[in-house]
Amino acid sequence: MIKNLFALALGLASLATFPPLAMGDPTSLAPAQHPRLMLTPDGVALIRANLGKAPLFDASLAETKASLDKILNDSPDVPVPKDASGPTQQRHARNESEMRNAGFLYQVTGDTRYAAFVKARLESYAKLYPTLGVHPASKENNPGRLFWQPLNEANWLVDVSQAYDCIYETLSPEERTRFETNIFRPMVQFISEIHGKEFNIMHNHATWFVSAVGMAGYVMGDQSIVKKALYGTKMDGSAGFFRQMEELFSPDGYYCEGPYYARYALMPFFIFAEVIQNNQPELKVFERHGEILRKSLFALLQQTDSEGNFFPLNDSMKEMNYRSGSVILPVNEAYTRYGHDPSLLSIVLAEGRVSLDLAGQVVALALAATPNPPPFPYASVEYSDGPEGSGGGIGILRSGLGKDLSVAVMKYTSLGMGHGHYDKLALEYYDQGREILTDYGSVRFVNVEQKFGGRYLPENETYAKQTIAHNTVVVDESSHYSGNYNTAKSLHSAKGFFQTPDPDFQVMSATDTTAVPGVAMRRTVAMVRDKALDHPVILDVFRLSSEKEHLYDYPFHFMGQFMESNLTRTPHLTEQHPLGEGNGYQHLWVESEGAITESTEKAGSLSFTWLDGNRYYTITSAADPSTQVFFTRIGANDPNFNLRHEPAIILRQKATNHVFASAIEPHGSFDGAKESTSGSFPVIRSVMVLASTGEGTVVRITGERGIRWTLLIANDSPDPSAKHLVKADEKTFSWVGPAKIVKE
Amino acid sequence: MIKNLFALALGLASLATFPPLAMGDPTSLAPAQHPRLMLTPDGVALIRANLGKAPLFDASLAETKASLDKILNDSPDVPVPKDASGPTQQRHARNESEMRNAGFLYQVTGDTRYAAFVKARLESYAKLYPTLGVHPASKENNPGRLFWQPLNEANWLVDVSQAYDCIYETLSPEERTRFETNIFRPMVQFISEIHGKEFNIMHNHATWFVSAVGMAGYVMGDQSIVKKALYGTKMDGSAGFFRQMEELFSPDGYYCEGPYYARYALMPFFIFAEVIQNNQPELKVFERHGEILRKSLFALLQQTDSEGNFFPLNDSMKEMNYRSGSVILPVNEAYTRYGHDPSLLSIVLAEGRVSLDLAGQVVALALAATPNPPPFPYASVEYSDGPEGSGGGIGILRSGLGKDLSVAVMKYTSLGMGHGHYDKLALEYYDQGREILTDYGSVRFVNVEQKFGGRYLPENETYAKQTIAHNTVVVDESSHYSGNYNTAKSLHSAKGFFQTPDPDFQVMSATDTTAVPGVAMRRTVAMVRDKALDHPVILDVFRLSSEKEHLYDYPFHFMGQFMESNLTRTPHLTEQHPLGEGNGYQHLWVESEGAITESTEKAGSLSFTWLDGNRYYTITSAADPSTQVFFTRIGANDPNFNLRHEPAIILRQKATNHVFASAIEPHGSFDGAKESTSGSFPVIRSVMVLASTGEGTVVRITGERGIRWTLLIANDSPDPSAKHLVKADEKTFSWVGPAKIVKE
Repeated sequence: MIKNLFALALGLASLATFPPLAMGDPTSLAPAQHPRLMLTPDGVALIRANLGKAPLFDASLAETKASLDKILNDSPDVPVPKDASGPTQQRHARNESEMRNAGFLYQVTGDTRYAAFVKARLESYAKLYPTLGVHPASKENNPGRLFWQPLNEANWLVDVSQAYDCIYETLSPEERTRFETNIFRPMVQFISEIHGKEFNIMHNHATWFVSAVGMAGYVMGDQSIVKKALYGTKMDGSAGFFRQMEELFSPDGYYCEGPYYARYALMPFFIFAEVIQNNQPELKVFERHGEILRKSLFALLQQTDSEGNFFPLNDSMKEMNYRSGSVILPVNEAYTRYGHDPSLLSIVLAEGRVSLDLAGQVVALALAATPNPPPFPYASVEYSDGPEGSGGGIGILRSGLGKDLSVAVMKYTSLGMGHGHYDKLALEYYDQGREILTDYGSVRFVNVEQKFGGRYLPENETYAKQTIAHNTVVVDESSHYSGNYNTAKSLHSAKGFFQTPDPDFQVMSATDTTAVPGVAMRRTVAMVRDKALDHPVILDVFRLSSEKEHLYDYPFHFMGQFMESNLTRTPHLTEQHPLGEGNGYQHLWVESEGAITESTEKAGSLSFTWLDGNRYYTITSAADPSTQVFFTRIGANDPNFNLRHEPAIILRQKATNHVFASAIEPHGSFDGAKESTSGSFPVIRSVMVLASTGEGTVVRITGERGIRWTLLIANDSPDPSAKHLVKADEKTFSWVGPAKIVKE
Repeated sequence: MIKNLFALALGLASLATFPPLAMGDPTSLAPAQHPRLMLTPDGVALIRANLGKAPLFDASLAETKASLDKILNDSPDVPVPKDASGPTQQRHARNESEMRNAGFLYQVTGDTRYAAFVKARLESYAKLYPTLGVHPASKENNPGRLFWQPLNEANWLVDVSQAYDCIYETLSPEERTRFETNIFRPMVQFISEIHGKEFNIMHNHATWFVSAVGMAGYVMGDQSIVKKALYGTKMDGSAGFFRQMEELFSPDGYYCEGPYYARYALMPFFIFAEVIQNNQPELKVFERHGEILRKSLFALLQQTDSEGNFFPLNDSMKEMNYRSGSVILPVNEAYTRYGHDPSLLSIVLAEGRVSLDLAGQVVALALAATPNPPPFPYASVEYSDGPEGSGGGIGILRSGLGKDLSVAVMKYTSLGMGHGHYDKLALEYYDQGREILTDYGSVRFVNVEQKFGGRYLPENETYAKQTIAHNTVVVDESSHYSGNYNTAKSLHSAKGFFQTPDPDFQVMSATDTTAVPGVAMRRTVAMVRDKALDHPVILDVFRLSSEKEHLYDYPFHFMGQFMESNLTRTPHLTEQHPLGEGNGYQHLWVESEGAITESTEKAGSLSFTWLDGNRYYTITSAADPSTQVFFTRIGANDPNFNLRHEPAIILRQKATNHVFASAIEPHGSFDGAKESTSGSFPVIRSVMVLASTGEGTVVRITGERGIRWTLLIANDSPDPSAKHLVKADEKTFSWVGPAKIVKE
């Protein structure tokens, strides 16, 4: 048996899913052999048999053992809770992971000192927990007990259930009863009943809640608790884990809050799925909803740049990447449970660590056998949003490899719950393994006590969530949905078309009519390769239609150093003011203003070049004398220096209907140590909107090296066989399909 | 013979210097065998014998050959010069290096196509050069011919002399006469006579001039030209190469302009020294002036951070590091000519390339034999400035290894000629392999045409050179020497003491009485290790003495994100103005002002914490209610966005005598991907000046974990045995030697 499983673990089997390692009669949840959560007796036997053969796993194990051995003889430190991010909070959080690790080490090594370590702490918690009322640092509407909020309590229970599971067989029936009566049952009741409303919602917090409760249920052998976790407190499938698997992801795996919170949600999804699989394989959790967990993990990884950083959509921290501990376990599980996809091994390699469980050993063994795994298949891909896939989506265009991977991301999803930003049709652009056109992310310094205890800062609401903080059009200096959560939460943009079979002309398009009443928006973003250019260029066409006149602001948030612009600039040399008074504008200093004058017009288009890293970038944009331009920098109305003081260029147009059309061109190179630079001027010199009607938009792009392109975009039917015809001056343009580029 | 030399090349000999490879009778400069500049017939034989044995050299050779082979059949492109940094300039610069490389390849491979490549271009230049007048893009006072300035002409001649030397034996006497009459002699005359004044000065340009002229002299066998190069146009030793070796370096090897221009000057110093050694070994060029070339190379390398970046003192670009091409050759030469110091091999390894000459092959062979060379011996070290070592100096304190190397640099040199900054007693501080307290460097984008053709930008004068751009005290908002070059160029700070035997208390001190008339300044910087602290802390005591009242500004230019300060702040939320009107102050926006109020006083000291990279830093500084504080950001009066918009905190005090005393403490850690942070609060909580008299300064530093230190600094004699006694309130402090720390 063990031999067979090991062969499977090494990927020699053809089964798509890993066979259950469970034992006993899990359906009835009759007293079963322990461990039975993340570990099983067979799994433990496998891990033991392969010790010393899987370097990454062995290293994780040795490191964990070394750090635990240092404190193995310490008395339990189980303080009365006091603070939200201070020493008592940190102590309980450390206890939970130390107990979880000690339980695991007991199973793997058989050393009873680890079991004693867990037991001593369970005894302390069994004394403390029944005495606790509301946590003194709780928020009124969301009280915790051991921690300031119930979410941390669920995190704790996920770990400590595993610790208890690992030492279960070493305990007397009286001890088990004591721990279950004083800790596990009241905590289950606290999370699933006192916080029953939150337990039943569709949200990452509830995923932690049901996983924690379900794991406590399995370890205690209590079928009714498990059922609540799987199907909601009513046990009717209206809530609970399986419903979450259907509601929180689109059918192709996009997690509704975006990648930053997906990273946090996938952790309990994969942990609890593994536990269910080990106990109730007949529920086929990994196969459910079209293998949604596999799809979600791949969708998450596709939402990273070439360095593994998540696209900073919605509330998110830019430092977060797929090397995060909460991604490591899902990657290991997905590899193990879904057919040993070798492309996941390159992620494991980049992570440099594996999870401390059977799946972690399985991937480490595979990596030892495949030290040079194939690269992760980064691709151009569109994901839908919403449980039925009808809530808009997100488009990702890619070209190139490694550091030369160009990535353009357009976001046309729904809001994404409370951490969503008002950023319909926002664009992000990566090159050189860096963010070139950026999304601010969120205003927060996680866990930094001086910064509001590590919580979201006020400027997250007043700046980061606002539309102007994103590369998308702001209408009348007001955010999408007027920044109103209740309006925004049920509305979304719509997919247009996504067409990537031609690697020289990949294009995506989306529309929105919900964000600003009376204003229809269509953004079309193309990634174009051409032999006249060293790198792919981004073409961006943002069409706005309205019966009333509006002020349209079209910003580019860039990083790096201004090099040149053909605008006539009026710099604010000795006095600076904010660009506006609200909706994020109050945070933007106006450093300089630009106007289109004769010299710009002569050039045909507005041109702005900056240097970022070792490359130049130029935005060439259609403009006329009525176009106003602002060079801004974040930092106004920021009394506590919570914001990063980054620059932007904003094009402003007063109009009813208007099309912003731009080329974003990477060019040349700069090497300071070699004192060498080349190609500091762009190749593309002009972008002009020749026509834009309800049927289509025609944009002309010209430049050096014989570049004369016509970009044709359908504004009506995205049908691949639909014919389109647009008159521009004396010429008529006709084409078939949603978008086309004609190179003369 | 070859065998012996090879043995020497591999470091098996005990001689400190490499024996001459020269031939013929070089003293008389009678017709000698060629090549005779960087290569000699014996050297060529050695290179040929060792092909395939020195991977780094073989890679350089293969790369050069591959790139040259692509253009080997191209007709010469020798255009009439037009521009300063455009296509004709770039073409001539490419020609010079292609010719130099082709000559080298001819010698090494014997393939006559490379010789023909050089000859064809010499023929073209022999036609063009006699027709040239003043270069059309020249500056009036410094006209070039082939290039816009004579310096580039000298660069060209250094390369092309070598190319000519390598194919000399393949040419007929008529051809040699044609090339020498039409190119080499007129160019020598142009550089050494028409630009005779610049040829004779003590400056890096003149080093290029004399090297170019001298190499042309040697290749033509013209003793009189060589003599001018070695001894100046008067041939009396009042100028020329040997005088430069004495005048431009201090006795311990500090180059007067600082490391950025040292990098540029060492290149011709080492090239021409090698040529002299090959032709006139009796001049013992490498031994001259106490082996000054060896000392200068080691001094240059000591002026780099843990990543190999040069300290950005004076005019300098932050991207420049020891991987620059102009450092590679001196490192290779220094290894070969000075006893094969194995610690240089670690630099070669980091550079990843070697020079294309015998020395390059010698180090590559050595690296092949020693693939894990010892690390470069970064140390705490003081260098003097000035030819006699009496012009002040520079102090460098170091502690730790690799990324955890802490480095504090204090600059108390003379001005350093035209690229010098007004930055007496300025401090820089590195940690984590990053600049933590920064020097702006210079305002320039080298070779970027849009940025004033790559030249120094106006803001280099108005900001980067000014005192306020540096971490040193500005008096009355005016720069040192009132920013007057003629006043500054002959004056300098003075060494105080430099005491580093105790790794737990390293300290350096310097004084200045020249920068601001009537104001005496002493800065003392200590690097202190203590078991209560995770990292070394910097203590900074800046004492100012004057009979008249002045405004003293004490800035810290930091990178990263503001976290917290115990100041009462008045932020400028909706309107910003510059801090001042001139001397660099006009470029600083005031983002916020800080005042010492009751809460600060209660804390005992001003405290400011920021986050940079993965670590927190806190400045704890003695302050009282009369201290004003400004939080500034560069960027005012910057119409063309030439400046980087970086922050600073400035402490201001109106006083006659005053002591600024601060602790700069790195602490804790921040890991965004792990969402973990610790130690975000400093350990040191208070810094107070207990007393400061002509005899000494007493500073008290207290903090958590039982820290209670007294720093005692002698203000009079730096004599190690001198006794000092200072009364502070009711207590008397006495100590022996220039500085002491007492930990209670």
